[in-house]
Amino acid sequence: MNIGVIGGGAIGLLFSAFLSKKHDVTIYTRTKEQAIMLQKKGIIVEGPSPFQIHVNKATSDRDYQEEILIISVKQYQLFPIIQLLKNLSGRTLIFVQNGMAHIELLKDLSMHNIILGSVEHGVLKKDHYLIEHTGIGRTIFCRFHANELTIINELNPHDPSFIVDVFDDWYSVLAKKLLANAIINPLTALYRVQNGELVFNPFFHRIAKKLFQEVWKVLELKNKSEHWDYVQNICKSTAKNRSSMLKDIENGQMTEIDAILGYIIAEAKKKHLSIPHVQFLFDSIKGIENQSEKGRPSQ
Amino acid sequence: MNIGVIGGGAIGLLFSAFLSKKHDVTIYTRTKEQAIMLQKKGIIVEGPSPFQIHVNKATSDRDYQEEILIISVKQYQLFPIIQLLKNLSGRTLIFVQNGMAHIELLKDLSMHNIILGSVEHGVLKKDHYLIEHTGIGRTIFCRFHANELTIINELNPHDPSFIVDVFDDWYSVLAKKLLANAIINPLTALYRVQNGELVFNPFFHRIAKKLFQEVWKVLELKNKSEHWDYVQNICKSTAKNRSSMLKDIENGQMTEIDAILGYIIAEAKKKHLSIPHVQFLFDSIKGIENQSEKGRPSQ
Repeated sequence: MNIGVIGGGAIGLLFSAFLSKKHDVTIYTRTKEQAIMLQKKGIIVEGPSPFQIHVNKATSDRDYQEEILIISVKQYQLFPIIQLLKNLSGRTLIFVQNGMAHIELLKDLSMHNIILGSVEHGVLKKDHYLIEHTGIGRTIFCRFHANELTIINELNPHDPSFIVDVFDDWYSVLAKKLLANAIINPLTALYRVQNGELVFNPFFHRIAKKLFQEVWKVLELKNKSEHWDYVQNICKSTAKNRSSMLKDIENGQMTEIDAILGYIIAEAKKKHLSIPHVQFLFDSIKGIENQSEKGRPSQ
Repeated sequence: MNIGVIGGGAIGLLFSAFLSKKHDVTIYTRTKEQAIMLQKKGIIVEGPSPFQIHVNKATSDRDYQEEILIISVKQYQLFPIIQLLKNLSGRTLIFVQNGMAHIELLKDLSMHNIILGSVEHGVLKKDHYLIEHTGIGRTIFCRFHANELTIINELNPHDPSFIVDVFDDWYSVLAKKLLANAIINPLTALYRVQNGELVFNPFFHRIAKKLFQEVWKVLELKNKSEHWDYVQNICKSTAKNRSSMLKDIENGQMTEIDAILGYIIAEAKKKHLSIPHVQFLFDSIKGIENQSEKGRPSQ
């Protein structure tokens, strides 16, 4: 199959590398520089099962040709891409953003089959063409508005390091992932600690629990104690990891706080719920972003 | 007059230096090492009006002889000293701790005249015998249980760099200082920013305002907008300063969080008030202290 992957970040490169084992993948990058490097070197995947693979094509042009497009840019980079996708003939679009703030934008794309993905891999981008696959996880694909999911079976590279699952209820999959992200990402970024500290440090653990209660209520999920165990287990199984938001803060980069806690705050407002801990944390991360902007060279 | 100053920290040394201009001061230090240095070198005060002064005596013994004792240790170091003061003959005790958590302990000292002090100086301890007087402020003395305050007039060195005021209502003086400390100290420590950022960064400013509202209510102060202006003006006039709690966190030392926010939380509990922002901030600082303990050599 011909597959287009929009976005040359860590997740985009991971998808492109594994899918290139079976398919012809075109990577759409933001910069020409990265496209040239990918054409030349392919993708190098480091980690427990390292490999290097040629990619069919890499380009910074935006003439999305493929029948299947995987959109793997950050949520805050999505808006201009949605404008381009609106003008394409009907095809399959797979969105793999964190959070749920992008769901609202998808209503403009009703001419397409839309599939949502939740990515559990740990992956670190080290160079334009080089990633480290730090944690083998699953990708869960869900129908958003699409007739069927058989295309996922065709797509699946059936690789033990790139496990693909399908699930029908997109809301519960994305909300569960968002719940974990809403707690682990901003708290580790605020305290500048590894994920494990949110369960091992008794004070941080108490704050995490309070945040959980607020976010869980806003997302209207069921099985409270099961979801709390889920969040704590992620902290434990990724105890030595530094979250993506912590890395963004450390590198003085924009975080995904709007897609994550911004969405929770907007939902709470609609539902007239008071979420003081979430608001405190949101303002804290925005304030820290505001600080690092001062030290960031203007573009 | 013979005056004893208990505690050789920044405030203790500042008081000892200015009072030695007019009185015979004995400094009671925790370590023998510091007592020896002070006996040998006196106190050196750096800053806009620098001076060096001989001190009458410095000792690590605890035989408090003087009729007037100024207790300038941190609140969390106070408990064993109170036990000693209980066994002394009646005299004048002046307490200059931050916060109000120590007020409860003073009920055991009813045989003494007790005066409370609120210190607004900026002062940095650079060595056992060396301080930098970074900000000239006032010291406000209030009667706690004492017949009169005439002793303060005798004590007053009448020095333009060490202004002394008296005020009758100890609660409003200490509560106002606590209000500012409760906001500025822990927030700057959490975000690792200078005081000014709490007004100049719009997100931190919003959080500071919410905290103010909770603390102001717990302390049952009047004139809401006047108190909020007071807090903001301190942030502006000390914009480039790093708060004492930020320095404690940076140096991996114990903070005064219990004396400051711990007291607010205990009071809120008595008054059945909900203060989620204060609780979040308290747990955050306790968690950060907990982190730095891991890296601190055991004593």
